[in-house]
Amino acid sequence: MKVLVLHGPNLNMLGQREPDTYGAQTLEQIDEMITEAAWDLDIEVEIVQSNHEGELVEAIHQALGSADVIIINPAAYTHTSVAIRDALAAVGLPAIEVHLTNIHAREQFRRRSLTAPVCHGQICGFGGWGYVLALHAAREIVEEEAS
Amino acid sequence: MKVLVLHGPNLNMLGQREPDTYGAQTLEQIDEMITEAAWDLDIEVEIVQSNHEGELVEAIHQALGSADVIIINPAAYTHTSVAIRDALAAVGLPAIEVHLTNIHAREQFRRRSLTAPVCHGQICGFGGWGYVLALHAAREIVEEEAS
Amino acid sequence: MKVLVLHGPNLNMLGQREPDTYGAQTLEQIDEMITEAAWDLDIEVEIVQSNHEGELVEAIHQALGSADVIIINPAAYTHTSVAIRDALAAVGLPAIEVHLTNIHAREQFRRRSLTAPVCHGQICGFGGWGYVLALHAAREIVEEEAS
Amino acid sequence: MKVLVLHGPNLNMLGQREPDTYGAQTLEQIDEMITEAAWDLDIEVEIVQSNHEGELVEAIHQALGSADVIIINPAAYTHTSVAIRDALAAVGLPAIEVHLTNIHAREQFRRRSLTAPVCHGQICGFGGWGYVLALHAAREIVEEEAS
Amino acid sequence: MKVLVLHGPNLNMLGQREPDTYGAQTLEQIDEMITEAAWDLDIEVEIVQSNHEGELVEAIHQALGSADVIIINPAAYTHTSVAIRDALAAVGLPAIEVHLTNIHAREQFRRRSLTAPVCHGQICGFGGWGYVLALHAAREIVEEEAS
Amino acid sequence: MKVLVLHGPNLNMLGQREPDTYGAQTLEQIDEMITEAAWDLDIEVEIVQSNHEGELVEAIHQALGSADVIIINPAAYTHTSVAIRDALAAVGLPAIEVHLTNIHAREQFRRRSLTAPVCHGQICGFGGWGYVLALHAAREIVEEEAS
Amino acid sequence: MKVLVLHGPNLNMLGQREPDTYGAQTLEQIDEMITEAAWDLDIEVEIVQSNHEGELVEAIHQALGSADVIIINPAAYTHTSVAIRDALAAVGLPAIEVHLTNIHAREQFRRRSLTAPVCHGQICGFGGWGYVLALHAAREIVEEEAS
Amino acid sequence: MKVLVLHGPNLNMLGQREPDTYGAQTLEQIDEMITEAAWDLDIEVEIVQSNHEGELVEAIHQALGSADVIIINPAAYTHTSVAIRDALAAVGLPAIEVHLTNIHAREQFRRRSLTAPVCHGQICGFGGWGYVLALHAAREIVEEEAS
Amino acid sequence: MKVLVLHGPNLNMLGQREPDTYGAQTLEQIDEMITEAAWDLDIEVEIVQSNHEGELVEAIHQALGSADVIIINPAAYTHTSVAIRDALAAVGLPAIEVHLTNIHAREQFRRRSLTAPVCHGQICGFGGWGYVLALHAAREIVEEEAS
Amino acid sequence: MKVLVLHGPNLNMLGQREPDTYGAQTLEQIDEMITEAAWDLDIEVEIVQSNHEGELVEAIHQALGSADVIIINPAAYTHTSVAIRDALAAVGLPAIEVHLTNIHAREQFRRRSLTAPVCHGQICGFGGWGYVLALHAAREIVEEEAS
Amino acid sequence: MKVLVLHGPNLNMLGQREPDTYGAQTLEQIDEMITEAAWDLDIEVEIVQSNHEGELVEAIHQALGSADVIIINPAAYTHTSVAIRDALAAVGLPAIEVHLTNIHAREQFRRRSLTAPVCHGQICGFGGWGYVLALHAAREIVEEEAS
Amino acid sequence: MKVLVLHGPNLNMLGQREPDTYGAQTLEQIDEMITEAAWDLDIEVEIVQSNHEGELVEAIHQALGSADVIIINPAAYTHTSVAIRDALAAVGLPAIEVHLTNIHAREQFRRRSLTAPVCHGQICGFGGWGYVLALHAAREIVEEEAS
Repeated sequence: MKVLVLHGPNLNMLGQREPDTYGAQTLEQIDEMITEAAWDLDIEVEIVQSNHEGELVEAIHQALGSADVIIINPAAYTHTSVAIRDALAAVGLPAIEVHLTNIHAREQFRRRSLTAPVCHGQICGFGGWGYVLALHAAREIVEEEAS
Repeated sequence: MKVLVLHGPNLNMLGQREPDTYGAQTLEQIDEMITEAAWDLDIEVEIVQSNHEGELVEAIHQALGSADVIIINPAAYTHTSVAIRDALAAVGLPAIEVHLTNIHAREQFRRRSLTAPVCHGQICGFGGWGYVLALHAAREIVEEEAS
Repeated sequence: MKVLVLHGPNLNMLGQREPDTYGAQTLEQIDEMITEAAWDLDIEVEIVQSNHEGELVEAIHQALGSADVIIINPAAYTHTSVAIRDALAAVGLPAIEVHLTNIHAREQFRRRSLTAPVCHGQICGFGGWGYVLALHAAREIVEEEAS
Repeated sequence: MKVLVLHGPNLNMLGQREPDTYGAQTLEQIDEMITEAAWDLDIEVEIVQSNHEGELVEAIHQALGSADVIIINPAAYTHTSVAIRDALAAVGLPAIEVHLTNIHAREQFRRRSLTAPVCHGQICGFGGWGYVLALHAAREIVEEEAS
Repeated sequence: MKVLVLHGPNLNMLGQREPDTYGAQTLEQIDEMITEAAWDLDIEVEIVQSNHEGELVEAIHQALGSADVIIINPAAYTHTSVAIRDALAAVGLPAIEVHLTNIHAREQFRRRSLTAPVCHGQICGFGGWGYVLALHAAREIVEEEAS
Repeated sequence: MKVLVLHGPNLNMLGQREPDTYGAQTLEQIDEMITEAAWDLDIEVEIVQSNHEGELVEAIHQALGSADVIIINPAAYTHTSVAIRDALAAVGLPAIEVHLTNIHAREQFRRRSLTAPVCHGQICGFGGWGYVLALHAAREIVEEEAS
Repeated sequence: MKVLVLHGPNLNMLGQREPDTYGAQTLEQIDEMITEAAWDLDIEVEIVQSNHEGELVEAIHQALGSADVIIINPAAYTHTSVAIRDALAAVGLPAIEVHLTNIHAREQFRRRSLTAPVCHGQICGFGGWGYVLALHAAREIVEEEAS
Repeated sequence: MKVLVLHGPNLNMLGQREPDTYGAQTLEQIDEMITEAAWDLDIEVEIVQSNHEGELVEAIHQALGSADVIIINPAAYTHTSVAIRDALAAVGLPAIEVHLTNIHAREQFRRRSLTAPVCHGQICGFGGWGYVLALHAAREIVEEEAS
Repeated sequence: MKVLVLHGPNLNMLGQREPDTYGAQTLEQIDEMITEAAWDLDIEVEIVQSNHEGELVEAIHQALGSADVIIINPAAYTHTSVAIRDALAAVGLPAIEVHLTNIHAREQFRRRSLTAPVCHGQICGFGGWGYVLALHAAREIVEEEAS
Repeated sequence: MKVLVLHGPNLNMLGQREPDTYGAQTLEQIDEMITEAAWDLDIEVEIVQSNHEGELVEAIHQALGSADVIIINPAAYTHTSVAIRDALAAVGLPAIEVHLTNIHAREQFRRRSLTAPVCHGQICGFGGWGYVLALHAAREIVEEEAS
Repeated sequence: MKVLVLHGPNLNMLGQREPDTYGAQTLEQIDEMITEAAWDLDIEVEIVQSNHEGELVEAIHQALGSADVIIINPAAYTHTSVAIRDALAAVGLPAIEVHLTNIHAREQFRRRSLTAPVCHGQICGFGGWGYVLALHAAREIVEEEAS
Repeated sequence: MKVLVLHGPNLNMLGQREPDTYGAQTLEQIDEMITEAAWDLDIEVEIVQSNHEGELVEAIHQALGSADVIIINPAAYTHTSVAIRDALAAVGLPAIEVHLTNIHAREQFRRRSLTAPVCHGQICGFGGWGYVLALHAAREIVEEEAS
């Protein structure tokens, strides 16, 4: 079982700035957590970070045939990108949207997700741990489909 | 470590009706999943279902002093109850909002959650499994606070 | 053939107050009209009034298996209760929404009905007589389904 | 006692098209139902169908002095015609708005009725049978006024 | 100098109904006022009343070449007719919008005029006398253009 | 018969600036037109111009007992002043709102008049001539009340 | 003279939580203040707290005949309950709405009160002291009506 | 293969007025273009122009059985007519909406089309040539359905 | 202890006009009530009425150093004046907003207060008596701060 | 005569996914259709597909001097990209917006096009054939400008 | 070269209050900065502060003929005054809007400027230094016009 | 002292197109102005132009540690990019937003800036000169922080 993990724009800056909002973890530390959890769950992960909307779109396209589930934190593009939404709908793989922070407790414009309606589910507010929860959910989804 | 699990209105009807939307699991089956997962995680759970806004408010009040985390699926009250929001804020315990379905992929009025802004995080779209993910998250939150 | 008639909040005050808006009939008089009309139409009726959203939700649940049609005047909850809407959708019985007054000719917020979209139809503006019309409609619905 | 029954635009197409939405009955069949029910209730009916907003306005004008009640299904004009609304207000006869379908369960723009606020009441969702219910209501209204 | 006076829908009912809102004058009495005032101002008037949007559109078309100014009370169509607006813009004659009542003091939807933006000016709230004021204004407009 | 004519802010600049929008007439020329027309109609006029909201409020107060009708061009305050609206309502004299330009054909925010709902009527789009029309209307109103 | 004092949801938690927002007073302390002030003003008070919308509705119903004035802090239900609004309108007693905090200085959704339009007046921002002010106002209202 | 071409209100005025917006072509010239292009494409066309909403509704009704495709420029009714929308849905023929101008580059209210959602496609901004493009598209649609 | 009482625009007209809305009391009578109550509470009051936004702004500025509390009825400026809001925030004294009428039961635009968010609390609906309640509240606020 | 054809994001996925919405044609097949039609119309075409907003902006810039017309399907960027809109306005070439589907019959957010207002016209709903229609229109535009 | 500098309401309070928002500088200190910078740039400045909307309007009027550029900080009137906007448009001098704070980072209602659309440009967020920048810009504007 | 100057999409086209809106200066000429002014102010500048949202995001990231202030003209991305907003917030350097045109005097959608709330200030409407003003402001900000 394979999972593509996509980190959206500015997530490469994690840990350096705004730790009050996003926590002190760096993206490297989160990626280690993901890798370890994937190992425990017998999941093969590929992790991609990009600040470019177009690159995220294409990473999603390439998941077709090479991944069973997409875990995506579209970050700022959550609220502005119809292109990523359409890409997720185009490949049709089960996708799980993750946010480090509780987007419902922040600015009004962060409460609207353009991508969530084409995802299987959404997990927000648990920091880097949200990705680990998403991996558990991914395994569950694949097993359910297989049964 | 103790967790109060609250099921909101109409969840007692699960499994009997609208399986296309809510799945075939009954609330009893979900509660068994919760109990088992809690056992594995060494968490003591109390589970309450109520169709009454006022009872949910009071169950939250009673968690003060008797629970470490609240996992709540406010169901229909998610979108209409300031009282439950205020109750969660009043007790100040970390709370996790769970929805069986992906509320972002349904009617427009289900996308606004009055309760989410006072919760720690939100998990939606994974059926009864969402509660299990929430239990994992609850453990993580408590451990982080303890450290 | 069995019909559950549900009266929502404040309807127990009918006749005593605001007769300019709601007419001089008491709820008892309306219930007599309903009982007589039901007798004529060979319908068995159960009539419940409650000021509690949760009780109305549960009365709807209990209709499952014990009634063929629900006639409901959700009164104030028409405009605020997703829980009653979800309950009606959960039991899936044909439901008829009745209002004593013409809700289109009153305050703006009374024009939006959260419950009507999951009902079979709506009758408003005919005072207590609206329930009698609803009983006729209920019979028609059941006969059509039977044919 | 006399009742003018007005059918608005496109109702002449009933039965031929969109039976999933509007049912298989033709307007002729509905008119027969109306005529029979009127006979039973000792009501004299005149039935007019028009696709022209202006003709409907003028038919309403002509009801002044020749009818006791107007039963009107303004169809598409429900949502766009201030002229029909003003005509109903101008003649001041009790009017009953009928819709074949439950307009609350369709497109958003069909939920706003410009004409309902100047009517006595509204009945929707019961197909051709809605007109029969309206005839019963019309009789009731006239008798109440007479008493 | 020639002026076309257009009366929109329901104005033929003036005097008979809703005198509290529209006054006791009949349209005939208003037309006499118009004719007399036109005589005094040496203006040739043609007066047309129609309840049909399409007829009003065509009356405006025919003013091209046969009238110098259009005085129009679009009544209900003020708020709903892009077609009359476009007709006024198409013929390009100076037009004066008249309303018997003060539309700013009535229902919210009567405050938006689709036609006023393509008119020279608007006069409202002075009953039938508004047409006489409009005739004075019409003379002024023509004289100014001539100078 | 006495009429108070009130000119709002910036009207003292007329003729000097923005002649494309407001015409080439100065306020002095308009005031002469008003004085002459008043003479012809046997009306005594007092004319006040002020750029101060508070002065306009107080001028309206002082009309109580000294004027029969108020003709007011609130200019920019039309769209922002509840105080002038309340002053007009407080003195209760018939008031006529005048605008030099057709406010319906300009910026969106100029289409909302806070003051018009408490006036007898409104005249817009006829330049300085609008005041003369308003004087005619004022005479008519007073005569109607006297009859 | 009798006054019913109603405390809405979560007010039983006062003093224990969110003292920054709601102050350090417990509901018991506030009730003592109320009782003392009532004694001084020669008013008999009954005090009820409930977290249930339906119970508050019924407490209002029971005031009919047993109280002269209702003082109500609907708390969270202020913003969501048409049922309490309708109950207040149904009994028709003068009601005074009290809020501990200045609701205008908090979240946007707390600025809309569904209940205030059917009350006599509103007092907010003075903590528990607001109830004492309301008792003074209640006496004044009753005396004015008596005079 | 037969196509009904419908021209909505004010299109009979083309060429005479507002050439800056609508071009210098008359409707006759456009109709010639249509006729020629239809001849080349071996399509039989019937062309109807009407300023009456009701006539356009009925022309659409009559297309049932006599035409394979409807090409319609609803002009002003695009933005206001639910009746034409319902007529198009009722007959269920493939329809193509044409506009002479680019409606997206004009007033805000012209950007909403009530009729487009029930059409097969829309072509706007190419003047009279848009009808020729629509004829090509009509042929393509019919051939695709036949294949 | 010193209190500045500010009366906004049109309040000088009290008693003369619109007694149905504002009561029969004159401002002089209200000022006497205020003076007497202040005497009883051992408060020194200065009372200012102005119809000028700028004068109210400056009166607030001058309170700095000369008053302990401001009681302000901004009247019409409540809904339109950011300047008075900013003045209240600038001086930072505790302010109490008073309205004679229940602003929640009037026109929609009167429900929004620009000034209330920077006040300590608000009292509305109790006529002139509202100022007396505000004096009591003022004393309470000062004593609390002192303690 | 040269035309630049731009395909926006996700169009490279055509044919593989969501054939119910977008049809079974691949982008290669559509490009062949375009190439053939261009050949027939004696037009030289350059075809570019990109998932990157910035690349589309730059492709538009490069059209300046190298193309006579731009045919663009901005796909998802239609609804979110001011940058592409500004690029089209910057180069000032006639542009034609094409959509495979009827965007008026899909989600609400797809009905707003940011780019259409700066285009010459728009064609939607005809699948890959829309590009061929656009080529015809492009030729017409260039010939008209040349004449 | 002459520049009129206008300070709007409450700016006379600078330095005394809310230093967290507006900084510790007094208006006198800012005026000194302005005077010095003007001296360096060889600009003659006149500086006016007023809390009265009408006085600001008239100061703008008087700039006509006596100043080349207006630098204005309308403060609270930025968001509410159409009168100042109209005054700026009336005199037609180039105007520069200055705000001490970054209005985009404050309350939502401070983001709308009624005056900015008729200004040449806007500078905000740089405290008293913003006026110095505006003087530089003023010189640039005048020199460009002269060239 | 170092400043990063960022030019957003389409600014590379300056001077070639739409000179009525953006002026005749090319970006090269503006960059020369910036370089000269920076020299005078003893500021080291790096200037980057990009049409790619992702590249702008990354240029901002790279400023961390290499620049003291960011001057950014996000152009079209001002109104659509949460990603650039988040990047500016992430690096936390003082940023100054510059626009060549007065964005308040253009289309409605250009009045909303997503990026301004996280900037220190904004300068708009002064063409290329705005960057020079921003450099002066940048020096001031750095000096203030140093003091």
